[in-house]
Amino acid sequence: MTVHHFEPTQYYTTIGSHAPALVVEDGDTVVTTTVDAHGQGASGDQVTPPGNPMTGPFYVRGAEPGDTLAVTFDKLTPNRPHGWSRKMVAPNVVEPEHVPFLPWPADEAKAYAIWQVDNAAATVTLIDPADTSIGSLTLPINSMVGCFGVAPADGQAISTATSGQHGGNMDYRGYGEGVTAYLPVFVEGALFHIGDGHALQGDGEIVGTGVEISFDVQFTVRVIKGLRSRWPRGENGEYIFTAGNARPLDQAVQHATSEMLLWLNADYGLDAVGAHILMGQCVEYDLGNIYDPAYTMICKVSKRFLPAR
Amino acid sequence: MTVHHFEPTQYYTTIGSHAPALVVEDGDTVVTTTVDAHGQGASGDQVTPPGNPMTGPFYVRGAEPGDTLAVTFDKLTPNRPHGWSRKMVAPNVVEPEHVPFLPWPADEAKAYAIWQVDNAAATVTLIDPADTSIGSLTLPINSMVGCFGVAPADGQAISTATSGQHGGNMDYRGYGEGVTAYLPVFVEGALFHIGDGHALQGDGEIVGTGVEISFDVQFTVRVIKGLRSRWPRGENGEYIFTAGNARPLDQAVQHATSEMLLWLNADYGLDAVGAHILMGQCVEYDLGNIYDPAYTMICKVSKRFLPAR
Amino acid sequence: MTVHHFEPTQYYTTIGSHAPALVVEDGDTVVTTTVDAHGQGASGDQVTPPGNPMTGPFYVRGAEPGDTLAVTFDKLTPNRPHGWSRKMVAPNVVEPEHVPFLPWPADEAKAYAIWQVDNAAATVTLIDPADTSIGSLTLPINSMVGCFGVAPADGQAISTATSGQHGGNMDYRGYGEGVTAYLPVFVEGALFHIGDGHALQGDGEIVGTGVEISFDVQFTVRVIKGLRSRWPRGENGEYIFTAGNARPLDQAVQHATSEMLLWLNADYGLDAVGAHILMGQCVEYDLGNIYDPAYTMICKVSKRFLPAR
Amino acid sequence: MTVHHFEPTQYYTTIGSHAPALVVEDGDTVVTTTVDAHGQGASGDQVTPPGNPMTGPFYVRGAEPGDTLAVTFDKLTPNRPHGWSRKMVAPNVVEPEHVPFLPWPADEAKAYAIWQVDNAAATVTLIDPADTSIGSLTLPINSMVGCFGVAPADGQAISTATSGQHGGNMDYRGYGEGVTAYLPVFVEGALFHIGDGHALQGDGEIVGTGVEISFDVQFTVRVIKGLRSRWPRGENGEYIFTAGNARPLDQAVQHATSEMLLWLNADYGLDAVGAHILMGQCVEYDLGNIYDPAYTMICKVSKRFLPAR
Repeated sequence: MTVHHFEPTQYYTTIGSHAPALVVEDGDTVVTTTVDAHGQGASGDQVTPPGNPMTGPFYVRGAEPGDTLAVTFDKLTPNRPHGWSRKMVAPNVVEPEHVPFLPWPADEAKAYAIWQVDNAAATVTLIDPADTSIGSLTLPINSMVGCFGVAPADGQAISTATSGQHGGNMDYRGYGEGVTAYLPVFVEGALFHIGDGHALQGDGEIVGTGVEISFDVQFTVRVIKGLRSRWPRGENGEYIFTAGNARPLDQAVQHATSEMLLWLNADYGLDAVGAHILMGQCVEYDLGNIYDPAYTMICKVSKRFLPAR
Repeated sequence: MTVHHFEPTQYYTTIGSHAPALVVEDGDTVVTTTVDAHGQGASGDQVTPPGNPMTGPFYVRGAEPGDTLAVTFDKLTPNRPHGWSRKMVAPNVVEPEHVPFLPWPADEAKAYAIWQVDNAAATVTLIDPADTSIGSLTLPINSMVGCFGVAPADGQAISTATSGQHGGNMDYRGYGEGVTAYLPVFVEGALFHIGDGHALQGDGEIVGTGVEISFDVQFTVRVIKGLRSRWPRGENGEYIFTAGNARPLDQAVQHATSEMLLWLNADYGLDAVGAHILMGQCVEYDLGNIYDPAYTMICKVSKRFLPAR
Repeated sequence: MTVHHFEPTQYYTTIGSHAPALVVEDGDTVVTTTVDAHGQGASGDQVTPPGNPMTGPFYVRGAEPGDTLAVTFDKLTPNRPHGWSRKMVAPNVVEPEHVPFLPWPADEAKAYAIWQVDNAAATVTLIDPADTSIGSLTLPINSMVGCFGVAPADGQAISTATSGQHGGNMDYRGYGEGVTAYLPVFVEGALFHIGDGHALQGDGEIVGTGVEISFDVQFTVRVIKGLRSRWPRGENGEYIFTAGNARPLDQAVQHATSEMLLWLNADYGLDAVGAHILMGQCVEYDLGNIYDPAYTMICKVSKRFLPAR
Repeated sequence: MTVHHFEPTQYYTTIGSHAPALVVEDGDTVVTTTVDAHGQGASGDQVTPPGNPMTGPFYVRGAEPGDTLAVTFDKLTPNRPHGWSRKMVAPNVVEPEHVPFLPWPADEAKAYAIWQVDNAAATVTLIDPADTSIGSLTLPINSMVGCFGVAPADGQAISTATSGQHGGNMDYRGYGEGVTAYLPVFVEGALFHIGDGHALQGDGEIVGTGVEISFDVQFTVRVIKGLRSRWPRGENGEYIFTAGNARPLDQAVQHATSEMLLWLNADYGLDAVGAHILMGQCVEYDLGNIYDPAYTMICKVSKRFLPAR
C-alpha cells in the first residue's frame, strides 16, 4: 500500500491506451493534481491546451480485461482560490422556441462567471458579474470529479468531451469526496485517467460547466478480480449507484437500470423478482449531465433497503 | 372558506370538460375519497371500471383561462389496509437486449405483489410473494397523488393514462402530503380531477405502479388570478419545482427547465443572467415517471438559494 | 354502394365520439369538402375557427371495435386557386445552437408564403415573397390528407394537432389520391374524420405546414370485419405501409416496424424468420412529420417482394 | 491523376490518425479491396479480426483541416459469390413489449442467412434457410459502402462500429456506386478509411447487417480547399444530401437539416427565407441506420429544384 506523489508533466484530451504515466500496485494510493477544464493549474497559468485534460494514465498492476477497478476519491481539494462557470443554460436544455430568448453573451469573454472558492469555509461565492442584478451568491462547496475513466476497448481513444462504458466526462455531482467509483477494465493495467474538477455543480451541468477549478487529488485503487461490470458504478455511505451514458436520457436510464439489476442479482443475492419489486418502490435516479455528447443518468438504491453484500 | 364533504358517485378515466361534480369557492377545502388505479375503493370492492378513475371534477368559481389554480394536498391517507404493485420493471426501462430476461409473470394474476399499509406505523410492508426469496420488506410510507389535473384546452378529453400541460398521470412521488400543486387554467372553473393514490413509489414508477391504494383526501383550492403558467408546478417546504411531461425525457427536461426560468424571472425578480447562473450550480432534477405515454421530469430549486418572492 | 353528397355544417378540432354528421353503409362513397388548417374554405372565407377543423364524423354501419376501417381516397382536389405555407423551418428540426439564426419572421403576417395551385397543370407555384430572392418556384402538385382518423378508445377527444393509434394529424405525404388508409376501429361506427388538405408537402412537414388548402374530397369506406390492426396502415399501387405516431422518431419507428411485422405474419403467410430476413434487406422508411406533438414514421415494403395476400 | 493499385496488408477497426497506408495526390484514383464486416476477404478466408476492418488510411496530399474531401465511389463490386446477413430485426427497432417475441436464434451459428451474389445478373439470392418457409428470394443488387471516413479531430480513434462528423459506420444505402461523398477534413492528409461493403441493405439496417461481402473498390479523391463542412454530405445524379449521425433519430435529423441549410446558403446562393421555403415543400429524408451506436438520418434535396451551383 504505497502512497505515490505524482506530479503530472503531460495531459491527454482523450481517454485511451496512452503510455502509462505511473505504474501502481493494487491497493496503492496516489497523491497528485489535476488542471481545470481549460488546462489551467493551481497558479491559474495555462499548463496544457484546453478540453478536459487528464492526469495519468495510471497503470494498475494486476488489472485485466474482465476485472473491475475500484477507485476511492479520498481527497478532492480545490488548489486555487478562483473557479469559473458559464453563465447561460445550454440551448439543448430549454424548449427550442425558447432558445432565441436565452441571455446569449455578447462575446466569449462575457460568457463566464468567476467564483471565489474557500476551502476553509466550504463555500463557493459568486463574484458579482456586471451584467446581472443577482449580486453575490454563496453556496456550499461540493467538490466532484467531472471526468475520469479507464482506457476503452478495441484501441479506441475517446474524447474527454464525452463518456461511455469506460467512464469519461459524466459530470455527475455524486462522484465526490469519499465516493468509490467502479469501472470495467478493458485493457491490461486499466489505465486510469482523472481530471476536470468542479468545486460545485448543479444536476445536469446545464450551463455546460460546474465551478471549474484545479484540484489536489488523492485516490486509492483496488482491483476486483473477475467482477464483470459493464457500466461505471459507485458507492457512498448511503447508496450504491450505476451510471448510464448515452443519448437520449431514456437510453441512459436503460443502461443504468440494467446495470443495477445485474448488480443486485450478482452481489446482493436478490433473485430477479425480488430485485424488481424492491427497485420499483425504492429506486432513485439522478441526472448526471444533459450537456455532453453522451448524457448521464444515475440509478441509485439506498443501502438500508438492501441485504448484506 | 367552506369545508365540503364530497362523496363521489361517478368517476372519469379522461380529464376533460365533464359536468362538475361539485362547485366550490376560491379558498374552499374539499374532503373526499379516491379509488385506486383499478377502480377499487376503501372496502376493496370494484367501485368503477379500472384505468385511473378520477374523483371530480371540481368547479372552482372564479378560475378562468389565464389564471393558475393552486391545490394544496392537506391530507392523503390510505383508507384500506392493503395496496398492490406490479412486480416487473417495464421493458422500456431496461436495455432492449435485456427484455427477454425480465421476470415475465406466467399470467396476469402473478403480476402483482400485495403490500400491507399501516398508517399508524407509517410503513408499507411487502406480503411475502411465493415467487421470490426476498421475503418481507418494510418501507416508509410516502403517500402521493399519481394523477390529478384540470380540464385541458380545446375541448380535449385526455386519458388518465397520460399527462400534459393540464397535469394528468405524472406519477411523481413529490406530489405528496403538504405539497401545493399549481396548474394552468384552460376552462372556466378549472375543473379539477384527482385520483390514483400511491402509498409509496420509487422514482420513475419503473414497475408501472406505486403501491396502489384508495385514499381519504383533503385538499384546498386557491385561484391565482392572472398568473400565467404553462406547465404544472409545485412547492413544498424546501423546494419550488416544475413538471415537464413529454417523451423522450430530454423534452420533458426542456419543458420543466423553461418553465422554471419563467418562474424565476416572473416571481423572484431574477434577471435572465442571474437565473441562469443560479440554476447552473443549484438546480436539481427528479425523474417523475418513465413508464406512462408521456414521461415526467421535475426541475427543482431549493428555496434557501432564492430571493424572497 | 351509395354515393353520398355531403355538405358539412359543423367542424371539430378534436377527433372523438362526436355526434355522427352522416351515417353510411359499408362500401359507400362520400363526396364532400374540407376546409384548410386555418378553417378557410373554397371561397377563402373563414368558415370555422382554425386548428385543423375536421369534416365529419362519418358513422360507418357495421364497424365495431376490433375491426379495421379501410378508406380509399378516390379524389383529393384543391378547390381554390391559392394555398399557403409557413416560411421557416421549425426550431425543433435544426440544431439547438442554430435556432437563433433561423429567419424568424418580424410578425405573424410575414410568416406565410402564398402559392398558386393549378389543378389543370398539376403544379403549385410560389408567389414571389418580398423577403427573399428565391423568386418564383414551380413544383409538381401532390395532394394529400394531413389529418384524418377515427374516434379513439376510452371516450378520449384528441386534438387534431396531434396523432396516435387512431390516426390524426400524421401529415404524411404518402396519404394521397388513390391510396387506401386502414384504421383500427375503437367505437361503433368508427366515426371517421377528415381534413387538413395539402396540395404539396415535403417530408417531415418541417416548416409546420404543407401548401395548405381546402379540398373537394371523394372517399370510399369499407369495413374489414375482425381484422385487428393497432396503428394506421396504408396501401398504394407499389407499397404496403404502416404508420407509427410518437416521440421521439425512434419510438415511431418501433411502432411502425412492429405493426408491419404483424401484418406480414397475419396477411402474407410469412413466418417470423422469413418476415425478418425480407424486411432486413427490403424495408424502407419515410419521415411523415417531425413537427407535430407526435412525430410520424412510415415503414414500407414493396409489394413486388411480397407473396400474394 | 495517377491510378494506384493498392493491396492492403493491415486493417483497422478504429478510424483515427493511423500511419498512412498510401499517399495519393488530389485527383488520384485508388483501386483496392475491402474485407467484409467479419474480416473475411475475396476467398472467404479470415484475413483480419472482425469488427468492420478498414482498408487504408489513404493520405491525400494537400488536404488540411478546414477543407472538404470529396470521394467518388467509381466502382463497388462484390468480389466473391456469397454474402451473409443477420436474420432478426434488432430489439431496439421494435416495441419493447414485442422483444420477447422476436425469432431469437438458438445459437450464434443460426443467426445468419447466406445469399448468393451474382454481379452479372445484378441480383442477390437468399439461399433457402432451414428455419423458415420463405424459400428463395431474389432481390436486385445495390452495392454500397457501410463504413468510411476520415481521421477525426483531437487525436481520437473512433470505433468502426459507430459514426460521427468524420463519417464512419453510417450504413446508408445511398452511399453506392457513382456517388460522391464529402467529408470534413480534421487532420493533414485527411486519412481516408473504407470498408464494410454491402451488396444490398434495407433502410435502417434493421437486422444489423446488409448482405455483407468483400469488395473490389475503385474511388477517386478530390480536395476542395477551404470548403467548410461539418457533417458528411453526398451527391448523386438526382440529389444532394447530408448525413446526421447521432441518437435519437431526432438529433440526427437536426444535424442533417442544419448542414443542408448551410449548404444551400453557401453553394446555391439561396438566402435563408428562400432555402427554408424550398426545403419545406421539397425536402426528403432517408433513414440510414437505426442500429449502430449513432443512428444516421439523411436530408435530401432534388437537384431539379435547385438553382445552379
